[in-house]
Amino acid sequence: MLPVDLPDSVREALLAPLVDHHCHGVSREDLGRAAFELLITEGSAPAPPGTTHFDTPVGAAIRRWCAPVLGLEAHAPAAVYLARRSELGAAEVNRRLLEAAGIVAFLVDTGLEEPELLSAAEMGRHGGAAADEVVRIEQIEQDVAEIAGTAVEYVAGLAEELAARAARAVGLKTIIGYRCGLDFDPARPSRGAVIAAAGRRLAERRERLRDPVLLRHLLWTAVDAVRERGLPLQFHTGFGDTDLDLHRVDPARMTGLIRALQPIGVPVILLHCYPFHRQAAYLAAVFPHVYVDVGLALTYTAAGSSRVMSELLELVPFHKQLFSSDCYGVAETCHLGSVYFRLSLGFALRERLEAGEWTASDAARVAHMIGSGNARRVYRL
Amino acid sequence: MLPVDLPDSVREALLAPLVDHHCHGVSREDLGRAAFELLITEGSAPAPPGTTHFDTPVGAAIRRWCAPVLGLEAHAPAAVYLARRSELGAAEVNRRLLEAAGIVAFLVDTGLEEPELLSAAEMGRHGGAAADEVVRIEQIEQDVAEIAGTAVEYVAGLAEELAARAARAVGLKTIIGYRCGLDFDPARPSRGAVIAAAGRRLAERRERLRDPVLLRHLLWTAVDAVRERGLPLQFHTGFGDTDLDLHRVDPARMTGLIRALQPIGVPVILLHCYPFHRQAAYLAAVFPHVYVDVGLALTYTAAGSSRVMSELLELVPFHKQLFSSDCYGVAETCHLGSVYFRLSLGFALRERLEAGEWTASDAARVAHMIGSGNARRVYRL
Amino acid sequence: MLPVDLPDSVREALLAPLVDHHCHGVSREDLGRAAFELLITEGSAPAPPGTTHFDTPVGAAIRRWCAPVLGLEAHAPAAVYLARRSELGAAEVNRRLLEAAGIVAFLVDTGLEEPELLSAAEMGRHGGAAADEVVRIEQIEQDVAEIAGTAVEYVAGLAEELAARAARAVGLKTIIGYRCGLDFDPARPSRGAVIAAAGRRLAERRERLRDPVLLRHLLWTAVDAVRERGLPLQFHTGFGDTDLDLHRVDPARMTGLIRALQPIGVPVILLHCYPFHRQAAYLAAVFPHVYVDVGLALTYTAAGSSRVMSELLELVPFHKQLFSSDCYGVAETCHLGSVYFRLSLGFALRERLEAGEWTASDAARVAHMIGSGNARRVYRL
Repeated sequence: MLPVDLPDSVREALLAPLVDHHCHGVSREDLGRAAFELLITEGSAPAPPGTTHFDTPVGAAIRRWCAPVLGLEAHAPAAVYLARRSELGAAEVNRRLLEAAGIVAFLVDTGLEEPELLSAAEMGRHGGAAADEVVRIEQIEQDVAEIAGTAVEYVAGLAEELAARAARAVGLKTIIGYRCGLDFDPARPSRGAVIAAAGRRLAERRERLRDPVLLRHLLWTAVDAVRERGLPLQFHTGFGDTDLDLHRVDPARMTGLIRALQPIGVPVILLHCYPFHRQAAYLAAVFPHVYVDVGLALTYTAAGSSRVMSELLELVPFHKQLFSSDCYGVAETCHLGSVYFRLSLGFALRERLEAGEWTASDAARVAHMIGSGNARRVYRL
Repeated sequence: MLPVDLPDSVREALLAPLVDHHCHGVSREDLGRAAFELLITEGSAPAPPGTTHFDTPVGAAIRRWCAPVLGLEAHAPAAVYLARRSELGAAEVNRRLLEAAGIVAFLVDTGLEEPELLSAAEMGRHGGAAADEVVRIEQIEQDVAEIAGTAVEYVAGLAEELAARAARAVGLKTIIGYRCGLDFDPARPSRGAVIAAAGRRLAERRERLRDPVLLRHLLWTAVDAVRERGLPLQFHTGFGDTDLDLHRVDPARMTGLIRALQPIGVPVILLHCYPFHRQAAYLAAVFPHVYVDVGLALTYTAAGSSRVMSELLELVPFHKQLFSSDCYGVAETCHLGSVYFRLSLGFALRERLEAGEWTASDAARVAHMIGSGNARRVYRL
Repeated sequence: MLPVDLPDSVREALLAPLVDHHCHGVSREDLGRAAFELLITEGSAPAPPGTTHFDTPVGAAIRRWCAPVLGLEAHAPAAVYLARRSELGAAEVNRRLLEAAGIVAFLVDTGLEEPELLSAAEMGRHGGAAADEVVRIEQIEQDVAEIAGTAVEYVAGLAEELAARAARAVGLKTIIGYRCGLDFDPARPSRGAVIAAAGRRLAERRERLRDPVLLRHLLWTAVDAVRERGLPLQFHTGFGDTDLDLHRVDPARMTGLIRALQPIGVPVILLHCYPFHRQAAYLAAVFPHVYVDVGLALTYTAAGSSRVMSELLELVPFHKQLFSSDCYGVAETCHLGSVYFRLSLGFALRERLEAGEWTASDAARVAHMIGSGNARRVYRL
């Protein structure tokens, strides 16, 4: 699978088990073509009439890399692939693809409470790996909003629930970028403003939270929870779906918040980042508590992922980069995340070795750090 | 011309006739050096004393790729090139270069009403191709503003003229990004606000329209016109001239408008995009009605165009990308647009074939889709 | 050092002495590991516990390229490198590394008034080169603010001091992007607003100036000073340290100011630019008075610098690009700046030669222009 001309030590380092520090559950259901196609796009609509989501970089990658895992020739047509998938059944497909990913631990964002998705424990069982939980704070807020009687109860409930959930998790995650961009006021809002906003919130408690005051309050409450336990806080930045405004989730826009968190010592983990991965690498280079990972950007750029990885490596310190598959919905996204991580990193290392820039032992060490070592250190696994 | 080691089927697909879905007329005049130099830059000033616009990527590309079409050695000096150009005369130069571009249909933006530019019909005749019209809505507005007697007449005139022109065109185009950036309020303005603004407009009717209310009204009137006929709407984004503020024409900034147009079903075509082509590809990937093309970015980046094409291909669905030369002023820009499109796409396809990511039949099919098939479908040619 | 397969003329052009049009002094002190590590990062904090700033692209580059200059094997471990550095002593290390950089003239930003840094004259002496001064206008302001008695004296003092310093310098430099971003109102502020702001300024005269009115006034006073003498004005843009907000120093944000300076004829030099170097190249391509250089972005991206250089070359006119090391603190940054400039430009030229895009004489001529010719013309050296 890897570029052929790599020293053995580097090849071994690249093929060593990975810590997937950010992923979601995959579906336990057998999926028809329409459902499958909607899970291989970040959009939420079918492809236009006469076209297919298989005619995308990730679609071509599924035929190339996942078909052999299901016992087909590489590049099998989409219809053949989907027929084979049905024949094997979801459980077997999940087991094969998650195992093929070569992952030793899944840190699972459990914020998508869809019963058809495998739980963290199930992800670990199917993939032959350990599993831990990362708690999505906006989901906690939704849960609290639905039962709180008063604004004061809401505020107290957030703190209690975040602390309780943090105690069982390896990290918290926020999707505040989706809800109000990343260019929000980084200051902790006043209690008065929070109580007032909480009152309005409870009047429309079934909606998605979009109020910036409460989103910021939630974030700062999460900071309290992770600070006590030394856990990191993950931020969705960059590439996502139609709910976000891409230019407003450039991680550079949260520089003020990053500055505010520096003395507190909370590790800030920037997820996805694309196409702002250079900005993210810059932040990781100049702020000691910032980490970075391009996650699903590699899966979705697929045959083009080497450039993304290489651009990230331009500035990011070797002790600041992490691996994630960011898989969701179909196990193909887990396998592809690991394939393109290994391929693209392998390509970048080979380039440095051929140019005489690094030694093989440097390259192997860096591959271990990025693939698992940094995550073990930051998440205290 | 193409990278040598491509399978025949892929080479044939790349060399097949292209649909140029966005271009302008080229000059019918014989041009002196000063005039020629001003047409090979997006700036509007001569090069600084002691320098020349030939000392640019596109200048080097003219010597490399256009000199042989005029019967000179590749890399002929600029002075030799211009002497040969004069010797042949503009008509012969245009005929040679437009034909060499291998284009089967020109969709011509007729908004630049300069008599020295070839009309759409003439572009087709010189290039041995079909020709259709794309109507620039800001030019329509200028025409209407110059003759409307009252605000009410102006508003009615816009709707009538856009509908009439759309009836004879294959699409409409807007340069609203030039006039007020792309981060405008996406909502359709109220009739009251429009009438009030139209009154002010008629008081300075010879100026370029810069009023955001009227620009938005014009845009929504254009949406009405294209919706009825199922035509696409082209948007200038990214790379342009000194009139625009580059950071304000990032297509991500029009995400709100894209969302508003989704239920209406109007195809949105993002032109140029550079250096925001990754943002554009992302929008095309997540919104079913968004299409993308880097147009003149390939001509102007020339020897560096492969990277631009490769970055676009990272995310763009294969059924969402189009080709254009965006030629303007000199026929060299048409030939170079097609040369660098074929070269850069060929380079990307070869890379995918060599890495075993795609099959040759995938590559050939994608080349046909991007080169002409997608445009035929979207523009209903 | 250079990619092997280059024609002799191109190789010679790349190895010819460079004009370093923007650099800072390096330390005259012997440095312990902690101090050294802080000078090879743009951050201001030690690496997190258990990690080192040597585990970065620039850290690996020091081991690769600087170790041999100190008489060690390439890739020597960090501890060995630092021991050898101490053994030789700072003066010898500086002499070796500055000389190895192959620089014929240093234009030194003298705004960092730290006594341990070599002066402009000392930089020249150690590096076997000429040396001239570039004056940082925010430092002048600080000096004037500390002694001015009244707002009127402050305003007069700025004009006098800037004029006096410009008379002995080859250019002025502003870091206004650090202080208030680059998206400030480009108009010259009124005298009334300036006098009012100056009064407030003198009340807190030891602080860093952050008032946008005074920063803009300072900038326009600098424009007066350079206009008279035909000097260029350097702008920090892009990549810097934790004091700046990266997205606000995109040079595209100063398009309005660039337009305002065009009729005045002041050359505008965009420094660093990364990751907005494409935006910078675009500005250099469309505005006749804009120049561009990626400076320390090459040093810090190190093994990944070829991509940065290639992206800059996509659009920048050959007569508009300059070289700088932007060295600061340790002489390694000077040597690496020149190494990666020559390597990355050599790589880009080789690519163009192999593709048949340029001739060898084009490539050699462009290498001379970028390496020294453009700087000699713009700075009138």
